[in-house]
Amino acid sequence: MKNDDFVKIYGRNPVEESLSADPSSVEKIFIRKSLKVSSYFDIRRLAKDNSIPLVLVPEEKIFSLVGDVNDQGIVALISPVQYLDYYEWAESLHINDATGVLLLQGIEDPHNFGAILRTAAAAGMDAVIVPTQHQSPITPAVMKSSAGTAGKIPIIRVHDLNQALKDLSLTGFSVHALDGKGSETIWETGINGPSAFLIGNEGKGIPDDILKKCTSVISIPMSNEVESLNASVSASVVCFEWRRRHTVQ
Amino acid sequence: MKNDDFVKIYGRNPVEESLSADPSSVEKIFIRKSLKVSSYFDIRRLAKDNSIPLVLVPEEKIFSLVGDVNDQGIVALISPVQYLDYYEWAESLHINDATGVLLLQGIEDPHNFGAILRTAAAAGMDAVIVPTQHQSPITPAVMKSSAGTAGKIPIIRVHDLNQALKDLSLTGFSVHALDGKGSETIWETGINGPSAFLIGNEGKGIPDDILKKCTSVISIPMSNEVESLNASVSASVVCFEWRRRHTVQ
Repeated sequence: MKNDDFVKIYGRNPVEESLSADPSSVEKIFIRKSLKVSSYFDIRRLAKDNSIPLVLVPEEKIFSLVGDVNDQGIVALISPVQYLDYYEWAESLHINDATGVLLLQGIEDPHNFGAILRTAAAAGMDAVIVPTQHQSPITPAVMKSSAGTAGKIPIIRVHDLNQALKDLSLTGFSVHALDGKGSETIWETGINGPSAFLIGNEGKGIPDDILKKCTSVISIPMSNEVESLNASVSASVVCFEWRRRHTVQ
Repeated sequence: MKNDDFVKIYGRNPVEESLSADPSSVEKIFIRKSLKVSSYFDIRRLAKDNSIPLVLVPEEKIFSLVGDVNDQGIVALISPVQYLDYYEWAESLHINDATGVLLLQGIEDPHNFGAILRTAAAAGMDAVIVPTQHQSPITPAVMKSSAGTAGKIPIIRVHDLNQALKDLSLTGFSVHALDGKGSETIWETGINGPSAFLIGNEGKGIPDDILKKCTSVISIPMSNEVESLNASVSASVVCFEWRRRHTVQ
């Protein structure tokens, strides 16, 4: 994603306010490297707490981003799309047995991410939850691949996947991880009550310590020694199996 | 696909032999435009019969393709991947109730095509049938998107989709077209016996005259006013619903 795709906020107080009020909207922070750490101590802490990248750059970089303004050596890139905060979303959610969410462990390819948003919206999922790390931001390429459906489903951003698993559980969700190591197939497994489905990163899959925290690990049976599916294909099989269970009696 | 991705055959007799022996392997024919039609009459007829593009070009184009050889003004591009002929495939097929094929109406995006090959192979489909027109050839981008699975499933190329529908029917297949206009959902519909699933072109969908020739028209239910799914997502939902029917008792 090019820096031009973002809204820019500059100056110490505006950036700190954005970080406090809506950290999920902040993609990245640039700090002039000649700046004393003490002058952006709180910004650094807030960025760290929310897993937002903070990069030290020469003065020219700051200038190229915002031009000749009173930037105080601090610029934040703000996402053009509104992410939701998990707690706010959960608070307004009328949870029931047919509530379903997709939890992405980090989808880096914009086309995959766009296709997944489109699929989740089409299947009638209630939200897609994405991490801040190893995750494609919502770029124009994502919007294009989502065929305009990105706005039809709430997108929640979380900075810690472990915390998200705990929060989902507290909210009342079972979390089913999709992984080749799954002991049950997606067709055999019980999908009862509010359900979240965890889809792994394209390259790395889901780490064992995360798998252990899920309610169940389920697999899509495969033939012909094919080892894995494209992440957007896995997501679509899961989304529509979930939909099938809530459609066919 | 760049011309470099193809094997080239040149000279009247070699090109005519390729067209007679294995027309499905021929991607395109270049003819020097100063050549008399009478000298490539049979080649023109064979190309037409098999819906293979035949392009008249200046001498320099022929030279840029094959260099200083005795090309007789005729060059054919040959696919680096072996397509199967429908009749040969059908003859060696042990058809049974669990036989399934995917029939593409023309998938132009190489990433979609690669993902569909990977999905069909993973779901255990018996073949993928593609048309010669409005269909991505098997390019390096397709191979990459298929994650090396393109070689794990027979790919059959046909030059006439209407003929393919007739042939599939004669071989014993029911043909289920996937379309938003479908009166039954993929979950309600009977999928009994050998089945072929027709997936429409990304942009245009399946024309009504083709839909009429299919055994049934089935749809994937969608929410949130999403109007369509990515072709590779539609294919994956269908492939794994077919797989589910043959897995779960």
